[in-house]
Amino acid sequence: MKSVSSNIELKRLTGIKAADLIHSGMTVGIGTGSTVAFFIEELGRRMKQGLEIKATATSYQSRILCQQAGIPLVDASFLDKLDIAVDGADEIDPGLNAIKGGGAAHTMEKVIASMADRFILIADETKLVPRLLTSFPLPVEVMPGALSLARKRIAALGGEANIRMAVRKDGPVISENGNFILDISFGSIPDDLKELDLLLKDIPGLVETGLFLGMAEMAIIGCKNEVRTIYPAI
Amino acid sequence: MKSVSSNIELKRLTGIKAADLIHSGMTVGIGTGSTVAFFIEELGRRMKQGLEIKATATSYQSRILCQQAGIPLVDASFLDKLDIAVDGADEIDPGLNAIKGGGAAHTMEKVIASMADRFILIADETKLVPRLLTSFPLPVEVMPGALSLARKRIAALGGEANIRMAVRKDGPVISENGNFILDISFGSIPDDLKELDLLLKDIPGLVETGLFLGMAEMAIIGCKNEVRTIYPAI
Repeated sequence: MKSVSSNIELKRLTGIKAADLIHSGMTVGIGTGSTVAFFIEELGRRMKQGLEIKATATSYQSRILCQQAGIPLVDASFLDKLDIAVDGADEIDPGLNAIKGGGAAHTMEKVIASMADRFILIADETKLVPRLLTSFPLPVEVMPGALSLARKRIAALGGEANIRMAVRKDGPVISENGNFILDISFGSIPDDLKELDLLLKDIPGLVETGLFLGMAEMAIIGCKNEVRTIYPAI
Repeated sequence: MKSVSSNIELKRLTGIKAADLIHSGMTVGIGTGSTVAFFIEELGRRMKQGLEIKATATSYQSRILCQQAGIPLVDASFLDKLDIAVDGADEIDPGLNAIKGGGAAHTMEKVIASMADRFILIADETKLVPRLLTSFPLPVEVMPGALSLARKRIAALGGEANIRMAVRKDGPVISENGNFILDISFGSIPDDLKELDLLLKDIPGLVETGLFLGMAEMAIIGCKNEVRTIYPAI
């Protein structure tokens, strides 16, 4: 059995290891999630020791943590590019393709990852899977008015779309862009995930999928006895 | 020279002609624009004479006009489908492919058109063009945080993206979904517009393009001396 405390310690060590990639002068894209929170904390500590960076963050949560850590934030809308982006994931396969969206922030996460010269995944080893979508459903962000259309089109692709319901708020989760999150389960997982991604994005009003395919150049993974750096398997 | 009054009269006659397609019991998708406004007005007149329909509209403007015309509105999010959708366009080619987005409402317009068994374009003949994108730039809706990324990716596709600036509001136009509108001009127009559409939609944070390809089954066009019904040229 995995102990909660050791899992948290793993995430902390992973976040610290990722901070080694960040050097003064960099503009850093910062993702969202529990491992990323440790990464931000560590960056804050290093800034007190002289590290000088700017950052853009993918969610309110990360912006708040950056503020607390003393990391100056810039608006991604007007940045030419990012030197590096670091983010967590819900599932990572051996090719370092990932599923994201458990935190409902995957649209801006994909924007930030796409703006970066280097995109690095950080996670504990429970997120490593032999194949994507075997246990975690695929989150997609959908405009409220497109709910019915998206459900129908997703069903035609073999998926069952469940609207994500909120806790501490009545009704559905609303993303930071004002949209719904649909979690899609597939009876049988499509072979070609890039094609699936394009077919999903072709649905009007479907804003973004949680598929991050061929984007990460490296992953920093907290394992039982060590923090491992892994690269995409060919 | 085209006279303004005759152009308005053409739009009125076109809207009236389109109303002939609507029968009691139908759920109707209603687009946005000056010709559509006459269509809504005519539907309201016919409802007073016994026509019974429900409608869903693609914008605040059309919802307000439907309210004024006494047309009961339903929420597209929970409709299984629409019997028919009627909308204007900024450019229409001989295949009845269209460019929309001049009114910044093209995302919901595409959702509504996609939900309908039949999608009908209505316009005056000034909107007919031999080839799309020769004079009208291509509108795309983009999340504010993705502005820089979208501009860069669009430039890589050979397009120049200009953020649409508002009038009677400082700064950029904000769509009814809270996003920016970029109007894209192409130095040379891409041959394969379906491929262009997919490449644009593949940009993270780009919500929807104004390309409506292969969607309309028929167009009702106000010409100088008559209102003509046209079908896609093979």
